[in-house]
Amino acid sequence: MTEMVTNEVPASNAYLEKMNKFWRAANYLSACQLYLLDNPLLKKPLTPDMIKKKIVGHWGTVPAQNFVFVHMNRLIKLYDLDLILLSGPGHGGNFFIANDYLDGSYSEIYPNISQDEAGMQKLFKQFSFPGGVPSHCAPETPGSIHEGGELGYSIAHACGAIFDNPDLIAATVVGDGEAETGPLATSWQCNKFINPITDGVVLPILNLNGYKIANPTIFGRMSHQELVDFFHGCGWEPYFVEGDDPMTMHRLMADTMDTVIARIKEIQAHARQQNDATRPVWPMVILRTPKGWTGPKVVDGKRIEGNFLAHQVPIAMDKPEHLQLLSDWLHSYHAEELFDETGKLLPELRALAPEGDRRIGMNPHANGGILYRELRLPDFRDYAFDIGNHGEKDSQDTQNLGPYIRDIFKLNDDAKNFRIFSPDENNSNRFQAVFDVENRDWNVQATAEDDHLSPSGRVMDSMLSEHMCEGWLEGYLLTGRHGFFDTYEAFSRIVDSMAAQHAKWLKVCNQLPWRHSIASLNLMMCSTVWQQDHNGFTHQDPGFMDHMANKNADVVRIFLPPDTNCLLATMDTCLRTQNFVNVIIASKHPRPQWLSMEEAVKHCTQGIGIWDWASNDQGQDPDIVFACAGETPTLEALAAVSILRKELPELKIRFINVVDLFKLLPQTEHPHGLTDVEYDMLFTKDKPVIFNFHGYPKLVHELTYHRHNNRLMHVCGYREEGTITTPFDVRVQNNVDRFHLVRSALKRLPNLGNRGAYLFQKMNDKLVEHKQYIHDKGVDLPEVSQWKWED
Amino acid sequence: MTEMVTNEVPASNAYLEKMNKFWRAANYLSACQLYLLDNPLLKKPLTPDMIKKKIVGHWGTVPAQNFVFVHMNRLIKLYDLDLILLSGPGHGGNFFIANDYLDGSYSEIYPNISQDEAGMQKLFKQFSFPGGVPSHCAPETPGSIHEGGELGYSIAHACGAIFDNPDLIAATVVGDGEAETGPLATSWQCNKFINPITDGVVLPILNLNGYKIANPTIFGRMSHQELVDFFHGCGWEPYFVEGDDPMTMHRLMADTMDTVIARIKEIQAHARQQNDATRPVWPMVILRTPKGWTGPKVVDGKRIEGNFLAHQVPIAMDKPEHLQLLSDWLHSYHAEELFDETGKLLPELRALAPEGDRRIGMNPHANGGILYRELRLPDFRDYAFDIGNHGEKDSQDTQNLGPYIRDIFKLNDDAKNFRIFSPDENNSNRFQAVFDVENRDWNVQATAEDDHLSPSGRVMDSMLSEHMCEGWLEGYLLTGRHGFFDTYEAFSRIVDSMAAQHAKWLKVCNQLPWRHSIASLNLMMCSTVWQQDHNGFTHQDPGFMDHMANKNADVVRIFLPPDTNCLLATMDTCLRTQNFVNVIIASKHPRPQWLSMEEAVKHCTQGIGIWDWASNDQGQDPDIVFACAGETPTLEALAAVSILRKELPELKIRFINVVDLFKLLPQTEHPHGLTDVEYDMLFTKDKPVIFNFHGYPKLVHELTYHRHNNRLMHVCGYREEGTITTPFDVRVQNNVDRFHLVRSALKRLPNLGNRGAYLFQKMNDKLVEHKQYIHDKGVDLPEVSQWKWED
Repeated sequence: MTEMVTNEVPASNAYLEKMNKFWRAANYLSACQLYLLDNPLLKKPLTPDMIKKKIVGHWGTVPAQNFVFVHMNRLIKLYDLDLILLSGPGHGGNFFIANDYLDGSYSEIYPNISQDEAGMQKLFKQFSFPGGVPSHCAPETPGSIHEGGELGYSIAHACGAIFDNPDLIAATVVGDGEAETGPLATSWQCNKFINPITDGVVLPILNLNGYKIANPTIFGRMSHQELVDFFHGCGWEPYFVEGDDPMTMHRLMADTMDTVIARIKEIQAHARQQNDATRPVWPMVILRTPKGWTGPKVVDGKRIEGNFLAHQVPIAMDKPEHLQLLSDWLHSYHAEELFDETGKLLPELRALAPEGDRRIGMNPHANGGILYRELRLPDFRDYAFDIGNHGEKDSQDTQNLGPYIRDIFKLNDDAKNFRIFSPDENNSNRFQAVFDVENRDWNVQATAEDDHLSPSGRVMDSMLSEHMCEGWLEGYLLTGRHGFFDTYEAFSRIVDSMAAQHAKWLKVCNQLPWRHSIASLNLMMCSTVWQQDHNGFTHQDPGFMDHMANKNADVVRIFLPPDTNCLLATMDTCLRTQNFVNVIIASKHPRPQWLSMEEAVKHCTQGIGIWDWASNDQGQDPDIVFACAGETPTLEALAAVSILRKELPELKIRFINVVDLFKLLPQTEHPHGLTDVEYDMLFTKDKPVIFNFHGYPKLVHELTYHRHNNRLMHVCGYREEGTITTPFDVRVQNNVDRFHLVRSALKRLPNLGNRGAYLFQKMNDKLVEHKQYIHDKGVDLPEVSQWKWED
Repeated sequence: MTEMVTNEVPASNAYLEKMNKFWRAANYLSACQLYLLDNPLLKKPLTPDMIKKKIVGHWGTVPAQNFVFVHMNRLIKLYDLDLILLSGPGHGGNFFIANDYLDGSYSEIYPNISQDEAGMQKLFKQFSFPGGVPSHCAPETPGSIHEGGELGYSIAHACGAIFDNPDLIAATVVGDGEAETGPLATSWQCNKFINPITDGVVLPILNLNGYKIANPTIFGRMSHQELVDFFHGCGWEPYFVEGDDPMTMHRLMADTMDTVIARIKEIQAHARQQNDATRPVWPMVILRTPKGWTGPKVVDGKRIEGNFLAHQVPIAMDKPEHLQLLSDWLHSYHAEELFDETGKLLPELRALAPEGDRRIGMNPHANGGILYRELRLPDFRDYAFDIGNHGEKDSQDTQNLGPYIRDIFKLNDDAKNFRIFSPDENNSNRFQAVFDVENRDWNVQATAEDDHLSPSGRVMDSMLSEHMCEGWLEGYLLTGRHGFFDTYEAFSRIVDSMAAQHAKWLKVCNQLPWRHSIASLNLMMCSTVWQQDHNGFTHQDPGFMDHMANKNADVVRIFLPPDTNCLLATMDTCLRTQNFVNVIIASKHPRPQWLSMEEAVKHCTQGIGIWDWASNDQGQDPDIVFACAGETPTLEALAAVSILRKELPELKIRFINVVDLFKLLPQTEHPHGLTDVEYDMLFTKDKPVIFNFHGYPKLVHELTYHRHNNRLMHVCGYREEGTITTPFDVRVQNNVDRFHLVRSALKRLPNLGNRGAYLFQKMNDKLVEHKQYIHDKGVDLPEVSQWKWED
């Protein structure tokens, strides 16, 4: 029977004494994870064979995070809070594991790590050990939605988590190293996007332990007044908890947190009772503690606790006398006072932690797939663009997608589980239709002329930061909701690393049966390399596809819908999937529309296919195959085919369009890949292929490397040529235009004789004519800009 | 004869009136650049044929930047300042061009854009026009060292520019949109790294025009007190200049700037006379002006000036009646009062701008190659590691490079033109030797225990921000100095986009004869995918090579030195080059050392070569070729070869190592590429090749796509498998270990019969033994960890 504990405000000294013991237990488990192979309760004297051969992990950040954890436990119990904890400092994941173990979460999820001596031994051994668990917070860590590898995204993730979760608190430890990164620095502004009525609370706890790996930290050395000013300027009210004496600090922290929670409740009560969403000044905590707190004071004559030398393992096992130091340190926690003989935490201490799903490790928001509910989707066919004949009408793909997105907002208005994210580009990317029913999120001062701003908006395009868009969306998805991020293609590279880390997170989650699947990360590239009339060279980079193509095949998908109806079908698919990173290359400019909805559905379902209406090889072997992926390359490939078919009607041409890029890969390398037989039936084994590609040509070469006819494939694509010029001229500069394509085809069709040579010369003339025309007029040749496919 | 102008403090009203005229001239030229094909002085009524068919560019940010420019001109003349201007807002490059034209810089550099009506007509037509110049500040813009495409790096660039330039002021307009990006947000901390004695001044001018593309800005809507607090917290003293009445604003700006310059001079005088480098509180300016100031007030019933609708072109030419609006607007500047009949700026206005190199467009710091001086380099051969026999001794490559870097600091101590950059990783990357002679840069509070911190340090590793490291280095290089950025390979992806933009900048500079060459951007990846014992999966990403491989071949280089002596030779080469982005993959962990200095010099000069001592095909055709690139793959390839040569001595093996990755490309695709004949002489046309690669295998497939034996090449490399484990186990997980390599070779040597099958089985057994051993012990098999090449 668990002893009842007194749990009151202010906390009693007796309660704080018990919390200190719990903290000692967490520190003990954290330290032992670094070192011990065996003898987990130190019942025997420590001998070298009980120590890991290679000791890798971090200590410096650990004790303060254990301190936060035990105080969060108190708050959860005392106020019955729905609270998750994000660990920004990254390394020191042993702290989170230790606390998960103490409250039983860890053993429930990993029964082999049992609540006894044997389990504790395994807990210690597995940490940062081959076949074991990472040294930082990771997908393997119950309760974590934040990987502690790359730094800077904790507040963005936390903020994404609490959007539309009015009862959730995301306590977020921010390291003072992490605080120096760009993404974290701008994250402090996130309070301008939080609605105190409909969103939850981000509670930042900036831990100033003063040091990074080998340097002091900027925030650790700013003056008290500078800290106060900085956070006031960012719109937060900082509460300081500073010191190193444990019991003094427990008192200070408990009292401060009581004040902070009272302030949060006061803010929420006012906002919700008065229906006043005005941005409040939210509280935050600045926790200044020694780095490596409670760890070894001095080793080899050097100060460790309170110094940067505490960052990783505080005692290297490179000298025999260090064994005693280690033993003394570990014994200083007096595990025998905290665990019973069998290795079980004493019930009076266990009672300090919450129960069931209130445990930080078991909170369903931190295993968001548990809360995942299907997004209600309208029938995308209802938004079909009536194309008339193939290529007869021009229209704008993303603009046509807008009403479909708008209606997703409508259909899920009750669930409030859908947001879209864009760095000030919603209109530029042509999603204006969403404003029929939804606003932009904005909780700063507003004016009458502002366009669709509201503290309740769920269109997240009011902050010019790709990092925040990506981080918010990740946090939103990780807690079981839905959305997408639309951005300029070139600037997707700003979040290369974030997206890669998310892909890695998903890959690991796929190997953890207890991690429930979440909605895919949908990244839509809307302002692409091919039309940058006034932005030019700096806005041209289609390499995000290359970047993602290197990631685990089970996780990544790349789609290049060539028109509106294909974009609709693709988005519908992407929004239904789970645990993928879907990259969608979409067009926003007026373009011919090729496929009816019926054709588009079939085409997108196959992912790759022959367009019969553009081909003339029906029933025969083609002389040449034209393939394409991406809307501009498709347009030019069709224009090239129309020239060839008109000028050389006897030529048999097959026209292939690729929507799902990984169809090109062998089946053995990607679940979507075609078998060689399937591939050869499309591309032939022995006919020349002209492949007009949206991105860098090398990517298609990579994907088709093992195919039979790879030597016969000529790939055109972006080759880093561009400046301010017309849409057609940038195609010409990169050889993806119709005239170059026809030339490329002719070079591979030597048997055409004079007729080929004549057409080749004609194409050269066209290229000269084009250059002269745009030089004089600044616009494209009418025969190009007004070109129509004739069915 | 130019009229003398009164230039006094405070500025006279007469002088401010003239400045206002100059500003009107700049605004006029900026607006006309957006619209006009002809009729530059509006001598005739405006007709549709005089208007560009497609009007693309930005207006919103322009007038305030013109305002800043004219006031900077005043300061330069009044105080004889050495001042450059960085334009953070990005778009609106027409403002910089307008001012360059007004002071004559533009015509000096581009004589066809002459100082007369004909030149003005060309000036207008070329802007954002095919074959013309980009719409944002760009390499083409005289005086700019900052591309206005991707936002967020202006302060970092400015700060890099003023390091070790004590007399330079980098005035930096920060847009309130840009201010929301992560990199810019953390840039405010840069004052902690500026030495008031030996560095110059970053003078931020935060322009609050209140709007981005379609949204208000966060900084634009923060309260006055929040702005004051924020910048006080960041360590700046903000001076506010707010309003919209031109003459009132000129008075306010001039007086404020006089105060700011006085404050800067006071800070510098104190620091330099007292030799007191203590971080001062530097002044900055907050300039609040209407977006699209002086532009059209209302168009189609919508407010334009002071609204987000002023962002791009304020009057679309989609309605006939807009022609009159445009005409009224352009006439409102009264060009006839500013330019003479021939189109030349009136001398009394021209006299407001500085002369010669003091002009912002002609300041040599903004064309840094002018100031570039060779770095003095020690003879790298003096730092040779004595390898004994091939592979006999272990050592750490980057640690061995340290003394060479240290001595670069020594040799250039007078020139003060060398810095190294790293996000808190200098020690982790093993460059401790530099601390013999140089300190870390740190100008915050310091303690006795801090390790080599000084306000005069030139080791820039005290801020944990890849963005700042990259931005600082770019600014340092762009102003004619030298350095490199060493970082964890995986986290180089954080600056993917920045490095790509720099590569694009260099590519364009190479086409501009007036842009003098600068030192290459050297990016060293020191903590690589292959040894992440306690960081694991999140720290594994070798894709920066793939990223750079897509950039212009004339600009990018990738080197994979396999040992210390090769790293020394490679660094020496990279530090001598100009206008490249050099990516260097370097090892920091203890590894066998393969090549003597003499061998290394030859090998690195060739970039690729056969290692005779590892091969046994001398004088004969090989049965198989082993190739490798990168230190870990080289180690495992050699180990595999040693197994094969021992077990199957009759097998003829050729061993090739690649240092310069682009040797693999055809000569036609990269200046370093081998001809097919050269390539075939190394790799053969018809023998199997096992290529063990540092990065993703696809990159080698890409590079060798067109080679004769591409189908016979089997590439092993990183395939996104990794977690906490031993160095050897992560190789096994990715199939780049010796046992997998031998198996791969045997699969391609079917004629070995039973002997091959026997060895294949033996390799399988080894892999099982390995797994069991690390599971039990947590370390690698002694036969692996203690393996030595036997010469």
